Amino acid sequence: MIRTCLSIVLAAGEGTRMKSSRAKVLHEVARRPLVLHAVDAAMAAGSTETVVVAGRDAESVISLLSSSDPSLRHVSQEQRLGTAHAALAARRVLEQGFDDVLILFGDTPLVRAETLKAARAEIAAGTAVCVVGFRTSKPQGYGRLILEGADLVAIREEKDASEAERRIDLCNGGVMALDGRLALKLLTRIGNENAKGEFYLTDVVAIAREDGLPVRMVMADEEDVLGVNTRLELARVESLWQTRRREEMMLSGVTLVAPETVFFAADTVVEPDVVIEPNVVFGPGVVVRSGAVIHAFSHLEGASVGSKASVGPYARLRPGADLRAGAKVGNFVEIKSTTVGEGAKVSHLTYLGDASIGAETNIGAGTITCNYDGYNKYRTEIGARAFIGSNSALVAPLSIGDGAYIGSGSTVTEDVPADALAIARTRQVVKDGRGREINERNAARKAAKT
Amino acid sequence: MIRTCLSIVLAAGEGTRMKSSRAKVLHEVARRPLVLHAVDAAMAAGSTETVVVAGRDAESVISLLSSSDPSLRHVSQEQRLGTAHAALAARRVLEQGFDDVLILFGDTPLVRAETLKAARAEIAAGTAVCVVGFRTSKPQGYGRLILEGADLVAIREEKDASEAERRIDLCNGGVMALDGRLALKLLTRIGNENAKGEFYLTDVVAIAREDGLPVRMVMADEEDVLGVNTRLELARVESLWQTRRREEMMLSGVTLVAPETVFFAADTVVEPDVVIEPNVVFGPGVVVRSGAVIHAFSHLEGASVGSKASVGPYARLRPGADLRAGAKVGNFVEIKSTTVGEGAKVSHLTYLGDASIGAETNIGAGTITCNYDGYNKYRTEIGARAFIGSNSALVAPLSIGDGAYIGSGSTVTEDVPADALAIARTRQVVKDGRGREINERNAARKAAKT
Amino acid sequence: MIRTCLSIVLAAGEGTRMKSSRAKVLHEVARRPLVLHAVDAAMAAGSTETVVVAGRDAESVISLLSSSDPSLRHVSQEQRLGTAHAALAARRVLEQGFDDVLILFGDTPLVRAETLKAARAEIAAGTAVCVVGFRTSKPQGYGRLILEGADLVAIREEKDASEAERRIDLCNGGVMALDGRLALKLLTRIGNENAKGEFYLTDVVAIAREDGLPVRMVMADEEDVLGVNTRLELARVESLWQTRRREEMMLSGVTLVAPETVFFAADTVVEPDVVIEPNVVFGPGVVVRSGAVIHAFSHLEGASVGSKASVGPYARLRPGADLRAGAKVGNFVEIKSTTVGEGAKVSHLTYLGDASIGAETNIGAGTITCNYDGYNKYRTEIGARAFIGSNSALVAPLSIGDGAYIGSGSTVTEDVPADALAIARTRQVVKDGRGREINERNAARKAAKT
Repeated sequence: MIRTCLSIVLAAGEGTRMKSSRAKVLHEVARRPLVLHAVDAAMAAGSTETVVVAGRDAESVISLLSSSDPSLRHVSQEQRLGTAHAALAARRVLEQGFDDVLILFGDTPLVRAETLKAARAEIAAGTAVCVVGFRTSKPQGYGRLILEGADLVAIREEKDASEAERRIDLCNGGVMALDGRLALKLLTRIGNENAKGEFYLTDVVAIAREDGLPVRMVMADEEDVLGVNTRLELARVESLWQTRRREEMMLSGVTLVAPETVFFAADTVVEPDVVIEPNVVFGPGVVVRSGAVIHAFSHLEGASVGSKASVGPYARLRPGADLRAGAKVGNFVEIKSTTVGEGAKVSHLTYLGDASIGAETNIGAGTITCNYDGYNKYRTEIGARAFIGSNSALVAPLSIGDGAYIGSGSTVTEDVPADALAIARTRQVVKDGRGREINERNAARKAAKT
Repeated sequence: MIRTCLSIVLAAGEGTRMKSSRAKVLHEVARRPLVLHAVDAAMAAGSTETVVVAGRDAESVISLLSSSDPSLRHVSQEQRLGTAHAALAARRVLEQGFDDVLILFGDTPLVRAETLKAARAEIAAGTAVCVVGFRTSKPQGYGRLILEGADLVAIREEKDASEAERRIDLCNGGVMALDGRLALKLLTRIGNENAKGEFYLTDVVAIAREDGLPVRMVMADEEDVLGVNTRLELARVESLWQTRRREEMMLSGVTLVAPETVFFAADTVVEPDVVIEPNVVFGPGVVVRSGAVIHAFSHLEGASVGSKASVGPYARLRPGADLRAGAKVGNFVEIKSTTVGEGAKVSHLTYLGDASIGAETNIGAGTITCNYDGYNKYRTEIGARAFIGSNSALVAPLSIGDGAYIGSGSTVTEDVPADALAIARTRQVVKDGRGREINERNAARKAAKT
Repeated sequence: MIRTCLSIVLAAGEGTRMKSSRAKVLHEVARRPLVLHAVDAAMAAGSTETVVVAGRDAESVISLLSSSDPSLRHVSQEQRLGTAHAALAARRVLEQGFDDVLILFGDTPLVRAETLKAARAEIAAGTAVCVVGFRTSKPQGYGRLILEGADLVAIREEKDASEAERRIDLCNGGVMALDGRLALKLLTRIGNENAKGEFYLTDVVAIAREDGLPVRMVMADEEDVLGVNTRLELARVESLWQTRRREEMMLSGVTLVAPETVFFAADTVVEPDVVIEPNVVFGPGVVVRSGAVIHAFSHLEGASVGSKASVGPYARLRPGADLRAGAKVGNFVEIKSTTVGEGAKVSHLTYLGDASIGAETNIGAGTITCNYDGYNKYRTEIGARAFIGSNSALVAPLSIGDGAYIGSGSTVTEDVPADALAIARTRQVVKDGRGREINERNAARKAAKT
C-alpha cells in the first residue's frame, strides 16, 4: 500500500528584507523560483497532493504554479498570523484525509527529498510529529531541540532557553511531518497567546506531547534547511545549490575545468564525457549529449546539443537551438529556434533565427538571417552541403536548396534551387590615387577641428 | 563648531616589489587608483584639507590628483627618509593650523571612514596621538601595541619585543590621528638614530608619552588596514573590496546571482530590484536604474541603464551609452556615445557609435554605424519607430526619420525622410547548377594540394 | 659528473572512476594532459631518460608522447598486476643502467621538480630507496610512513596498522627514488602474496630493509602528491595548479585584477607590467609582452601579443594571431593566422583569418575576411595605413595596398593598389511614404495571425 501524503508549502511571507517588488518565493535559485524547489522536494519525497499557501503577490505565485504544474493546488492566506495559521489555510485540503502531512517552507529551497522521506518513515512507524533538526556551530537565534533519548521533548526558543539549553547545538529546521489522521486536530489547538499574537507551528510539539503522542526528530545538514531572507542569503543558497550540482555532474563523468565558473539551471541535463570549459552559463531547458564540448564563455538556454557537437567560445544558444551530432557553433554566434544539422558549421559572428540548416552545410562568418520585419517572424530553410558565403544577409521567408552556393556579401531575397549559385553584389570600382585623397581630406578636417 | 582636519596621505613609496614601471599608488582597486581610495576615506571622515605626499612618479600622481579633484593639494618628497620625513614634507600645510591631523597611507585603500572618525573623536576628546590598531592571528612582523588600560604606552617593533610582547596580537595599523595644535612640534622631534637612519612616524608615540600627553588607540579590522606591497596583495585587497561592495549591494536589494563573478568599480551605482547575472564587469561611471536586468557576460563603462532596460548577455556598453527605460541591448552588441530610446531594441551583433536611436525603433542584427573615417567621428540620428533591416551599414553623418524603413543589407549613405523606405542592394542573380560546379572545383583544388 | 637518471612514469591505470572513454592520463590540467605534467617534473628534475608505462588507451597515450617529445620512450603494460609490475614493464630500459631511478605517477600532475631533486640527492648520498612523504590532517586510507630517526622503517597500510600507527599523519606520497644499481634487483623481488594478488611497489621498502640497505624519506606538501581518480579531483588539481601559477605571475609583476577568474595554460608566458582583467582564458601557446592589457572576457590560444597591445574585451585570438606592438583588437573580434601590424586597429565585430594587416591600418567594424570556400583557405594581404570601411567583405585571395581606402559595405573581390579607393555598393533608393506602408502591412499581417 502506498501511503498518501499531503505537502503544504508555506509561501505567504512578506520577505521585506529582500527589498523587492516581488514576493520572496518568486526569486530564483538555479533559474527556478524558490517555491518550486520546495515543491520539487515534496514531489520527490512522494507527495500525492501538494498545496501552496500564497500570501504576498498571491496572484503571481498562483500564476507561476498553474503554468508550472496544473496539478498543484494553492490557497491564499489573507491575513498573515503565523506559520500555524498559514498551514491551516489549507484546512479544506487537510480535511480530505492523508496518511502523512509534510509542512515545508517556500523560502527553503535546499531541503532534500531524502530528509522528507526519513520524516515520513517516522510517521509511518507511528510517530505523531516529526521535526527536521540540524546541528550548527552558531545556534544563536534558532529554536533548540530538547531530546530525551529518541523523543523530542520540546522546541525551546532562544528567549525561553536556560543557560544550559542555549549551549545545545541541535536546532529546529522548520520542516516537519505529521500523522495525517492527527494533523488537523493538533494544528487547530495551537493558540496565539504570545508577544506577537501569532500562531506558531512549533507549538504542535508541546500539544502532541501533552496528549502523550510520540514526537521525534530526523537530522538534516545545516545547509539543507537554510532559509532565504535577504538577497545575500539568496546568493548563498544559489552558491550551495551550484556546488552540489557541480559535484554531482563531475562524479557522473562530466569534466568541469573550473567548476566554480559554471552555472547550471535546475533542469540542466549533461551526459558523461562532456567537457565544459570555464565560464559557461545554463538557462532552463538544456540537454547536452555525450562527447560534446562547451567552450568558454558560452550561454545556453532551451537548447539541445548533440553528441560530439562543439559550442563556443562565446556562443549563445537560445530556446529552440537544436544542434545535431557533430555540429559546430563558434564565436559570437547566436542561434534561436534553429536546427543545425549533423556536421554543419556556423563558426563566427552569425545570427540564425527561425531557420533550419542541413547536414554538412557551412555558414560563413557574418551571416545574418533577416527573420523579423518588426512585427512577424519568418523562416529560413537551408539544405544540406550548402555553402553560405561570408557576410550574407538571408531575407526570410527563404529556401536555399541542397548544395547551393551563396556568394559572399550577398543579400538573398529569393529562393535558391539545389546546386545553384546565387549572388547579389555590385561590381567593385577602383579609383587610383583616390584613397590617398580621401585620407588627406579626412586628416585635414581633423586638423581643422583641433 | 565643525573641527578642521588636515589629512596627509603618504604616497611616496618606491613599491619595488610591485615590479612595475608605475608608482604603486597608481595601481588600481575597483578601477580607482590606490591613492584616491585613501583620499576618499579621508574626505568621508570630514577632512577639510587633504594633501598627498608624492615621491616616485610624482608627476603622474600629481596629474591624477589634479584631474580627480582640483582642491587636493600635493607636495613632493624629494628624498625618501622614512614616514615621518614624508609627513613633514607637508610642513607648510601643517603650519596653517588644524584641529585634527590624520596621517594615512596611499597604499592602504580599505581603511574605513568610520575608523578615521573614531580616531578624530579621540583627538576631540583630548588625546594627543591616536593610533589605529588591529588584532591578528599572525602578528609576526608587525609593531605590537602595548596598552595600559586605555593608554597606548608604546609601539614595540618585532625585533625589540620581549617573548611576552611577541605574543601580543594587537598590532599597529599605521594610520594615526594627531592633535593639530601639537602635530608639527611632535613630528619635528622624531629622530633617525636607528639602523636604517630613517625617521619613523611610530616614534611619535614615545615622544608624546615623554611629554605626558595622552596617547590612545582605536580598533580596525585587520582587513581594513591591509597594505599593498605586491600584486598578490593588490589582488587580495581588490577581492576584499569587491566582497564588501557585493554584500552592500545585495543587502540594498540588488540580486547578484553569483556575486563572486561580478566586479564593481568604485563609483558604480545600482538601484534596488536590479538583477545582475553571473560574469558582469563594471568600469567607472555606471548607473543602473531599478528593474533593469544585466545578463551574463556584460561589460559596462560610463553607461546609464534605464529602468527595466535589458542588457546582454555579451553586451558591451562603452562611455556615453545611455539606455532609456525599457530599452534592450542584446548579444555581441557594442554601444558607444549613443542614446537608445525608450523601448528601442538593439538585439544582436551590432555596433552603434555616436548615434541616437528614437523610442521603439528596432535595429536589426549586424547593423553597423560607420562613424569613423580614420580621422573624424560623425553622428547618426535615427528617429522613433524606425526599422533598420539586418546587416545594414549606416554611413555617418546620417539622419533617418521617424518610422523609416531600411531594407536589409543596405549601405545607407544619404538621409532618409520620416516614413520613407531606403534600400541599397543589388538584384540577386541565380545560376542553376553553378553552385555544384563551384563546389566541385574547390574540392578538386583541395585534392590537388593534398 | 652529472648523474644519469631514469624516470618511469606509471600511466597504465584504468581510471574507471573518471567514467570516461579516454584513459585517465589523457585528461588535462592547464590544457596539458596529466601524463605530460609528470614527464615535465621528471625532466625538470634532470631525468636523462624517461619512459612512460602505458596501459589503457595505450595507442593514444603513445601517440601523444611521440608528438609531444620524440625522445620520450614508452612501454605497454599488457596486464595490470600492480604498480611494481607496471614499473617492471620498463625492465629493458632499467637494464641499461642508471645512477638514479625515479618512479612517478601519470595521474599525479602537481609533483614538484624540487621534491624529485631532493629524493635524487638522497640517492646520491647513499640511500637505496627514498620515498616521498606528506603530512595530512586526514591520513585515513593512506599508507603511513614509520620512521626511526631519519630511517624509513616501513610503509604500513591502513588495514595492517595498529591503533597508534593509525594516528600517524605522515603518509606515503607514492613517488619514489631508487639507487639505479639496485633498482632492478629490488623490484624483481617484490611478490604478489596478498589479497588482490598484485605486485605493490611499496613492498620495495621492506625488501631493502631486509638487506640492511638505507631507506629514507623526503617531504612534499599534501597538495603536491594529490592523485586524480575522479573528475572532481581533476578539477581540484586544476584549481591548485591555477592558484600556484596565478601567484607566481603576480609576484613576477603581472596584474591580475581577479586572479580566480584567469585560467592559464601550462606554457603561458606573460611578461611583467601586463594587466589582465577578470575572466580571461588562455589556451596553449600564448606569449604576452610587457605593457599589454588583456581586457575582460578574452580568450587567447597560440597567439602572440606585442608590447603595449590591447586585447578585448571579448577578443578571441586563435592560433597564429600575431599582434605587434601597440596593436588593438577589440570586442567581438576573432583573429586567426593573422598578423596585425604595429598600431593597427581591429576594434569591433570582425573576423580576420589567414591575413596580414600592415602598421597603422584601421579595420572597420563588421569586416569579414572571406578566406574559406568550403574546401580551401586563401590569404588576404593588407598594407600599412589602409582604411577598410565598416561592414566590408574581403574575398580572398586578395591584396590591398598601403594607404588604400575601402568604402563601407563593399564586397571586395579584386586587388586594390596602394592609395586607391575601392568601392562596391549599389546607389541607395529612397521611396517616400513606402516605409509607413511596409510597417502598416507587417502590422496587419501580425494582427491577422493573432
